[in-house]
Amino acid sequence: MFFKKKKISLNNLYPNLKVKNNFFIEDIKPLRFAKKNDLTFFDNIKYRDEVDKTDSRVCITSEKLQKFLPKKIIKVVVKNVLFELSKILNKIYINADIDFPDKSLKKPVKSYFKNVKFGNNVLIGKKVKIGKDSIIGSNTIIEQNVKIGNNCVIGHGVIIKNSLIGNNVIIQDNCKIGQKGFGFIPIKKNNIKFPHIGKVKIEDQVEIASGCTIDRGSIDDTIIGNNTYLDNQVHVAHNVQIGSDCMIAGQVGFAGSSKIGNNVSIGGQAGISGHLKIGNNVKIGGGSGVVKDIEDNQVVMGYPAIRLKEFMKKNRKNNDHN
Amino acid sequence: MFFKKKKISLNNLYPNLKVKNNFFIEDIKPLRFAKKNDLTFFDNIKYRDEVDKTDSRVCITSEKLQKFLPKKIIKVVVKNVLFELSKILNKIYINADIDFPDKSLKKPVKSYFKNVKFGNNVLIGKKVKIGKDSIIGSNTIIEQNVKIGNNCVIGHGVIIKNSLIGNNVIIQDNCKIGQKGFGFIPIKKNNIKFPHIGKVKIEDQVEIASGCTIDRGSIDDTIIGNNTYLDNQVHVAHNVQIGSDCMIAGQVGFAGSSKIGNNVSIGGQAGISGHLKIGNNVKIGGGSGVVKDIEDNQVVMGYPAIRLKEFMKKNRKNNDHN
Amino acid sequence: MFFKKKKISLNNLYPNLKVKNNFFIEDIKPLRFAKKNDLTFFDNIKYRDEVDKTDSRVCITSEKLQKFLPKKIIKVVVKNVLFELSKILNKIYINADIDFPDKSLKKPVKSYFKNVKFGNNVLIGKKVKIGKDSIIGSNTIIEQNVKIGNNCVIGHGVIIKNSLIGNNVIIQDNCKIGQKGFGFIPIKKNNIKFPHIGKVKIEDQVEIASGCTIDRGSIDDTIIGNNTYLDNQVHVAHNVQIGSDCMIAGQVGFAGSSKIGNNVSIGGQAGISGHLKIGNNVKIGGGSGVVKDIEDNQVVMGYPAIRLKEFMKKNRKNNDHN
Repeated sequence: MFFKKKKISLNNLYPNLKVKNNFFIEDIKPLRFAKKNDLTFFDNIKYRDEVDKTDSRVCITSEKLQKFLPKKIIKVVVKNVLFELSKILNKIYINADIDFPDKSLKKPVKSYFKNVKFGNNVLIGKKVKIGKDSIIGSNTIIEQNVKIGNNCVIGHGVIIKNSLIGNNVIIQDNCKIGQKGFGFIPIKKNNIKFPHIGKVKIEDQVEIASGCTIDRGSIDDTIIGNNTYLDNQVHVAHNVQIGSDCMIAGQVGFAGSSKIGNNVSIGGQAGISGHLKIGNNVKIGGGSGVVKDIEDNQVVMGYPAIRLKEFMKKNRKNNDHN
Repeated sequence: MFFKKKKISLNNLYPNLKVKNNFFIEDIKPLRFAKKNDLTFFDNIKYRDEVDKTDSRVCITSEKLQKFLPKKIIKVVVKNVLFELSKILNKIYINADIDFPDKSLKKPVKSYFKNVKFGNNVLIGKKVKIGKDSIIGSNTIIEQNVKIGNNCVIGHGVIIKNSLIGNNVIIQDNCKIGQKGFGFIPIKKNNIKFPHIGKVKIEDQVEIASGCTIDRGSIDDTIIGNNTYLDNQVHVAHNVQIGSDCMIAGQVGFAGSSKIGNNVSIGGQAGISGHLKIGNNVKIGGGSGVVKDIEDNQVVMGYPAIRLKEFMKKNRKNNDHN
Repeated sequence: MFFKKKKISLNNLYPNLKVKNNFFIEDIKPLRFAKKNDLTFFDNIKYRDEVDKTDSRVCITSEKLQKFLPKKIIKVVVKNVLFELSKILNKIYINADIDFPDKSLKKPVKSYFKNVKFGNNVLIGKKVKIGKDSIIGSNTIIEQNVKIGNNCVIGHGVIIKNSLIGNNVIIQDNCKIGQKGFGFIPIKKNNIKFPHIGKVKIEDQVEIASGCTIDRGSIDDTIIGNNTYLDNQVHVAHNVQIGSDCMIAGQVGFAGSSKIGNNVSIGGQAGISGHLKIGNNVKIGGGSGVVKDIEDNQVVMGYPAIRLKEFMKKNRKNNDHN
C-alpha cells in the first residue's frame, strides 16, 4: 500500500531452491500473517508458537531454527536471516530502506477535503484521505496514501507518513509518525539499511502528546490500540504493538517488536526492551527497565523490573544494610 | 484569559446543594489561590495544609477527605473528585480539553510589532503581544493571547500557546510550550479528557534548549522561575512549578504538579515523580528517580533517589558482595 | 568559520601579563589542537596528558592546575577558568553565546543548487553548500555556511546550523543539529551564557533518526563518526565525540565532552556522564548510567554501570536475599 512492489517469482529469487510449484511472491510477512503466496521468516525462538499458524510455503530461517518448522514448509537456510530478508526486501520493494521525502506534497485542495479544516502551510501528499470534521494544524505534513479518520485533531508541525489513523484521534504538536525504524545490518564503514515495508496503525480514540516518535513496522506493523493515551516525548520503535486502553507516561521508550496488552499503565521514563510480551492490566512503575515478559495483572518496578513487592522489600533490605 | 468562560451560578451547577447565598462562579482554583467566588477542590491529603488558607466557600472533595475541611466551607462530596472537576470544567470552559489549532494564526503585521524581528513563515494568533527587541525564528507559531516580553530570542519551529513569557528569555528551536497536559479519567473505550485551563508562566532570564515540552497547568499554572535553564529534550508536565536559578540537564522529566525550589540542579535523564516538593539548593544526580519529597540542601542520587552518601555506601557494599 | 572573529592582541587582552613577544590571537582551542598563536585553557585534571601536546604559548588555568603545565607556557591563573574563557570568547567572537536565528534565510535559488532536490518551504542561509544528488525535505531550515555533502537525505522539519555534514548522510525528520549547548556560569538572577564557537561534524554514511538534538561544541567540536547510527530522540551534548560504526539506540543521552570509541553499541535510554572516555567495541546495556571511563571491549550494564557479569551476579544475589 505504501511501498511499490515488483512482481518476482520464487524461482527467480531462489533459482537453486527445489520448488515444485513456482509462484509469484505476493508479500513478505511474519509467520502468523503469511498467506499461501507470501514469503515468511523465522529468526527468533520466541516466535516458535507461530510456526504452526502460518500458511506460507517458504520460510527463511537459520541452521539452528529450521528443525522447528513443519516439514511441508520449504526452508531457505541462511547464516543471517535479517541480512537475507534485507536483500530480498530490497529486490521486491522500492525506496523502503530510506525515507525519501514525498515529492507529491502540495497545499491541500479544499474542494477535495470538503469537511476538513486546515491551518496554514499544510502539505499533503497524493491520495491522502482525511475524514470529515478533522482538523489539521499549521506546518503539518501528511505524506502520500496516509489515511486519517473522522473527527481527528492533528496539531501543528506534525509529520505523518505510511500510517492509517482511525477516528477521534488526537495527535499533538510535532509528533513524527511512520518514519523508518532503527533497523540495519551492522557492517564496518557502511551498514546495510533494513527496508521497512510495514506501517503505523493508530486505532480510534487514541491521544498522542507532543514530540512523540512512532516508527513504522519493518515487516510487521506498529500499532497503537483503541483509546490508548501517550504522553509527551514517548518513543515507539518499529513493530511495537500496544493494546487498547493503555496509559503511557512521558519519555517512555519501547524497543522494537514488543507486544503490550490492554489496560497497561507505564510510568514516566520507563523502558521496555525488544521482543517482549507484556500482559493485560500490567502496571509498570516510572523509570523501570523491563527486560523480561510480564504476565497479566502484574505490578512491576525497578531496573531490571521485578514485582513491586520484591522491589520494596529489596530496597528496605538494602537500606537496613546501611 | 486563554479560555472562554461561561457565567454559571452555583445553584445552577448544583441544584440540590443547600446554599444560602447563591453566586456566580468566578473561576475554579486550587485551595491556596481560590477567592470568595471561586470553586475549589481537595483531592489529595498532600494539600491538607492548604485547607485553612482558602477563601473559597465551596469545595469539591471525597467522603474520606471532607473532615479536614473547615466547617464554614460547603462540601460537594463525590466519589471521584477529578471526574467531578472534569465535568464542571467542561460546563464552564470551552475547548480546554482538546488543543484545537488556533484558527486566528496569520503572518505577523509588521506595523503592529514595530520593534520585533521575524524570520520567515512565522504565524501569530490574535492579540499576541511581543515586547521590543525580541526576535522570532522561522516557522515558529505563537497562538492567540500569548505574551512575550522584551529582548527575547525564540528559535525556529517553536510552538507556543497559552503562555506568558517574561523578558530576556531564550527558547531554542522546536520547543513546544503550553499544550494540554496528560490528564484524563481512564474509562474503557473512551477516556474523559481533563480540561486544562491553566497556563505556562516563564519568568525572566530563563533559557530553554531545543526540543523541550512544557505542558500548561490543568487548574493551577506551570511555572519556570527566573534565571532557570533547561537543557535539550526536557519534559515538564502540567502544574509543575520550578523555582529560580535552577539548572535542569538534558532529558530530565517532571511528572505533574511537583514543586521544585530555588537553586536546584538536576542531572541528565533524572525523573521527578508527581506531587512532590523538592526543597531549595537540592542537587539530584543524573539518572535518579525521585519518588519522595526532598528537604532543602540535600544531595541525592539513585533509583529511588537517596542521599548521595548512602548511595555511595550501598554501591560499595553491593560491590563487596561480589 | 561560523562565528565572526575580532582581531585582538594578547597584550590588549591581558595588559598586565608579562609577554615578550606580543601577537594577535588566532583562535581559542583545546590544548591538543592549539597552535602557536592560539590561546588555550586547562581546567580539568582529566586533560593532563594534553599539556605536553600543545603548541600554544598562553594557557588560562587555575592555581591548582598551573604546576602541570610546561615552564615555557605563559599561565593566566584565574579563579574560574570557564568564567575567564567566557569573558575572552565574548571579546573575540560575536553572537556565539545566543543562537540568534539566521537573518539570511531564503528560499533556495535552484540555479545555484543544480543537482539538489528541495521539498516545499525550505529555507537556506547564505553560503550554504549542498552536494549533488542530495535531497532536502519540506520545512527544513539550513543556516548560513553549513556544508552538506553528496547523496544526503535530509528529512522534513530539520534545523541545521554551524555544521559540516559528509556524504551519504541520512538525517530524519525534525532533528536539531548545531545549536548552542548547555553551558553557562551559574550566577544568581542572571547566569553568564558560555559562548559556543565550535561546530558539529557529521562524517560519511551516518544515519540520524527523528527528533535527535546534537549541540555544537563550545570550544572543541561535536563529532559523529563515519557509519555511526543514532535512533530517535537521542541527545548529544556539546563537544561529545562519537567514533565510527557505533549504534546508539533511542533516547540515549550524552553529557558534554565525552569521547566514545569506535564500534560501540549503546542500548536505549542509557546515559553517559560528562568528560568520560569510552573505549572501542564497548557494549552498554539499555538504561545504564555510565559514570566512569570504560576500557576497550567491555560489556557493561546498570546504574551506575558495571561489568555485565557483576551486574548479573549482583542481581541474582539481591534476589536471593528475598
